[in-house]
Amino acid sequence: MLSDIEICRASTLLPISEVALRAGLQNSEFHSQGEHKAKVSLKSLNRLQSNPTGKLILVTAMTPTPLGEGKTVTTIGLAQGLAKLQRSVMACIRQPSMGPVFGVKGGAAGGGYSQVAPMEELNLHLTGDIHAVTAAHNLAAAAIDARIYHEQRHGYDDFEQRSGLTALRIDPMRVVWKRVMDHNDRALRMVTVGRNEADKTINGYEREDGFDISAASELMAILALATDLKDLRARLGRIVVAYNLDGNPVTTEDLQVAGAMAVTMKDTIEPTLMQTLEGVPTLIHAGPFANIAHGNSSIIADNIATKLSEYTVTEGGFGSDMGFEKACNIKAQVSGKAPDCAVIVATLRGLKANSGLYDLKPGQPIPKSLFENDSEALVAGFENLKWHINNVNKYGIPAVVAINRFPQDSGEELLQLKAMIEALPNNVDVAISEGFAKGGNGTVELAEKVIKQTQSNATFKPLYSFEQTTEEKLMAVAEAGYGASNVVLSDKAKQQLEALKKHGFDNLAVCLAKTPLSISTDGSVKGAPSHFDVPIRELKLCAGAGFIYALCGNVMTMPGLPDKPAFMNLDLDENGNIVGLS
Amino acid sequence: MLSDIEICRASTLLPISEVALRAGLQNSEFHSQGEHKAKVSLKSLNRLQSNPTGKLILVTAMTPTPLGEGKTVTTIGLAQGLAKLQRSVMACIRQPSMGPVFGVKGGAAGGGYSQVAPMEELNLHLTGDIHAVTAAHNLAAAAIDARIYHEQRHGYDDFEQRSGLTALRIDPMRVVWKRVMDHNDRALRMVTVGRNEADKTINGYEREDGFDISAASELMAILALATDLKDLRARLGRIVVAYNLDGNPVTTEDLQVAGAMAVTMKDTIEPTLMQTLEGVPTLIHAGPFANIAHGNSSIIADNIATKLSEYTVTEGGFGSDMGFEKACNIKAQVSGKAPDCAVIVATLRGLKANSGLYDLKPGQPIPKSLFENDSEALVAGFENLKWHINNVNKYGIPAVVAINRFPQDSGEELLQLKAMIEALPNNVDVAISEGFAKGGNGTVELAEKVIKQTQSNATFKPLYSFEQTTEEKLMAVAEAGYGASNVVLSDKAKQQLEALKKHGFDNLAVCLAKTPLSISTDGSVKGAPSHFDVPIRELKLCAGAGFIYALCGNVMTMPGLPDKPAFMNLDLDENGNIVGLS
Repeated sequence: MLSDIEICRASTLLPISEVALRAGLQNSEFHSQGEHKAKVSLKSLNRLQSNPTGKLILVTAMTPTPLGEGKTVTTIGLAQGLAKLQRSVMACIRQPSMGPVFGVKGGAAGGGYSQVAPMEELNLHLTGDIHAVTAAHNLAAAAIDARIYHEQRHGYDDFEQRSGLTALRIDPMRVVWKRVMDHNDRALRMVTVGRNEADKTINGYEREDGFDISAASELMAILALATDLKDLRARLGRIVVAYNLDGNPVTTEDLQVAGAMAVTMKDTIEPTLMQTLEGVPTLIHAGPFANIAHGNSSIIADNIATKLSEYTVTEGGFGSDMGFEKACNIKAQVSGKAPDCAVIVATLRGLKANSGLYDLKPGQPIPKSLFENDSEALVAGFENLKWHINNVNKYGIPAVVAINRFPQDSGEELLQLKAMIEALPNNVDVAISEGFAKGGNGTVELAEKVIKQTQSNATFKPLYSFEQTTEEKLMAVAEAGYGASNVVLSDKAKQQLEALKKHGFDNLAVCLAKTPLSISTDGSVKGAPSHFDVPIRELKLCAGAGFIYALCGNVMTMPGLPDKPAFMNLDLDENGNIVGLS
Repeated sequence: MLSDIEICRASTLLPISEVALRAGLQNSEFHSQGEHKAKVSLKSLNRLQSNPTGKLILVTAMTPTPLGEGKTVTTIGLAQGLAKLQRSVMACIRQPSMGPVFGVKGGAAGGGYSQVAPMEELNLHLTGDIHAVTAAHNLAAAAIDARIYHEQRHGYDDFEQRSGLTALRIDPMRVVWKRVMDHNDRALRMVTVGRNEADKTINGYEREDGFDISAASELMAILALATDLKDLRARLGRIVVAYNLDGNPVTTEDLQVAGAMAVTMKDTIEPTLMQTLEGVPTLIHAGPFANIAHGNSSIIADNIATKLSEYTVTEGGFGSDMGFEKACNIKAQVSGKAPDCAVIVATLRGLKANSGLYDLKPGQPIPKSLFENDSEALVAGFENLKWHINNVNKYGIPAVVAINRFPQDSGEELLQLKAMIEALPNNVDVAISEGFAKGGNGTVELAEKVIKQTQSNATFKPLYSFEQTTEEKLMAVAEAGYGASNVVLSDKAKQQLEALKKHGFDNLAVCLAKTPLSISTDGSVKGAPSHFDVPIRELKLCAGAGFIYALCGNVMTMPGLPDKPAFMNLDLDENGNIVGLS
């Protein structure tokens, strides 16, 4: 089989203006960026307001292996399958981060015959939104350090006289806004900034700092949750970047930098329109993490897509305990639009990995034996898939399992798995999904099952409402959501909870940041664990995004490059075409 | 008078496709990026090869005040003036850095009625080239630190066995590739990267590092000097980023990251087409510094513009001792195309500032008295302007002085200055330029004088050829160029010269990095100094860009934010329009 980029380059793509017009946009409602990308204007939403709202299908997964189970392939494949059935359909996905493209993971445009095209544009700069997020984020960081420097240099009084501003008296030990970069750059995780040569102070106030990858920026979560430009601007001003010497929060608005951040991010509010290899219109918008943030593409993109098309297919990061939970409890409560159906991606290797019969450790390569026939492991691992089906249904959302087929999968095992799912008491459907190898022709059965399930009259029930206390919300996700016995807050987390209450941050959503490799907070615990505790080490405030995230373990927010990074394969050929991208 | 952004927003702009077609491009030769920007494909150059090559006009200046003397206003104004005379004309300018937009300086799109539009797009992300330069630069930085980390962690042998690569044995104390960011961020000038918590080594190898502003990246100079994509790729591989433990250079090619850098910068090779407020097609491309780099927009943009139009107006950074010198000795020797005429921008305030009668210090505000009538200061400062006229003529290039008029200028003084210039023995022309207040109507006389001068048959003579030794080339610029008595190399510079010779870097251009505020290397020395030395503190290699830069003093490559930065004025209004940008 050809490589992803070869398949992509061999495909004939429509001019993006034709994709836009076929999708139902008018000429004044999009701006082409070259031949295959367009920014979609939010004024389209005004015109489309009275259109019926289409069905929203959220692709999630069972507990994944570190390789992922093919959620984006399934998302794009399913959208193509729906198009094969002559349904009007759009896909909405997150913008991939450039860091992993150069590191280990590679691109995130789907794969095989279910890709968003041109994949190299999606995987690299696209229309510059991540760059703009990075720029706006780092502008706030520069503003903080400059303010500390100028206020400390000759004292607060002098500063106030000279500038006409009120001193913010930021505590340099309590700056909570790091810098960001869209690279896997281990060396930037912990840095000292503001260093000076001996006897000089011209380079600023020395303090400990660090960089996250840009996708981990609160601004990315804000972009994904904003409902329009005004909402974006307001959220940008609510960000707490530091605390002052009295322990009170200092915001971007206090720094008078929120306006400039909004100016910098102005164009990011417009989703980018692209197409799949089979011409299905696809909106790319925002790319927040699925642990420290909610891991779903934007509300704005969904709003446009569901007004333009009968079916909108989108995805949430990691398993249904992660991106799907946050899609329901955070995103849907902000947008007012819950998924009408969830597709749970399962794979033979994913089930076996969840059997407990293999010694899988996070960060270590998957043993080859996992890809061989092993009925016992399949049965044991099925508990995990069952958990995810029940989890989806718990929210009142109907489910279809998509068994994402890999070339090495045995037909017998695939049928065994299908039968096991069909035998479940849930009203769940199942189809083998072959989007990778066959494009939309490989997902027609899946598409049919999805259409059927979206006709159910189930009622959406989130696990909590924002008005509950933060403790109640944390308990709702951990206990009602994961099935844990208890939430255990560290002393630090308890103190933080008090401080957050004191400062009035009690009506926010909660976002649990835990390992995606287990339903519990311990990545080595496979299957469908129960009777476990959810330890919360630390609480962090994202007042702009509107949630408090709870660290249940170490979350790496700046990846590193391996000893032989993927960038070594990348180059331009004689004709200036990109080679080596996957 | 209206603000720049108000004037810009009140103007009617042509669709960019119409600008492109009027400029002589074909539909397949440009890609619109929204309504007012387009990327111009290099394949246009193949078709245009047999066209006659138009005249290249380089706008330079007398020794400027820290405020600048209005070179971009004059460049855009002159292009509009030539258009008023029914000449086919294009302008080529550098992409402004975003940092200064948020700091003190503001935008760099020209001003008043001589602007490139939409100015907010030019001054912010444009088509993402600076972001791509930043990303490619920092990818190389991440690659260096990752390589050091992996090689040092368990030893070279282990690294080689595990990765199958040959250890590069980079000396962590001799990494010469910093990171970059497109912000004024003082705190990043000197940083420690790779810091770890006690007893851990997971965050990399700790070492001292720093950030420059992106415009100071060698990649920006490479982009400006590359002649096509292949040349860009080759230059990207020649960059020396570090030295190994034997003292030998380590390149981006050694790190196997040059291909990925080229992939990241692929789209930057295409200039961005915009228009002036009067519809003159303008190419924006690259934005290198005018001290540590050559300070001119790209060869590729000039090549396209001179094939499309009768007149191409471009500019070099700072005075004629800076960007113009480098345009002649570096850029023109790479491109094979020298300017046909130089326009020297002079202002009343600039002459007075060069009189020696005012106590001007770099970094301090200019006294208001400088803007009042002062014939004595005008006469004294005239020596500086004369120097620049002679300097331009020295290269065999005819000159026209553009007296850039400010609202507060006295008509009497303007005429006095004009007469002084007309009385010079040089074959120099002069016109009062009112591009700011009147657009092209304010520069018609200037345009006529420029047309006349481009008809001269002067022969271009650079000061050196690349084949000379580095010492000879440094002497040529300092002595023949600036009129200095001597070049004085520090011991460090002497050692570096030896090392550069030893490693075979002797056929490169030289780029002197000195203050722009004096012809000498001492910014407080005004007028037309002579009998001065040029002290060279340090030599730095830009093997990819193809020059060695010589530090003649402190050059700030990462600006800081002032106590009340310009970003405080920026915001979005009720309609989502940007306010407060100048």
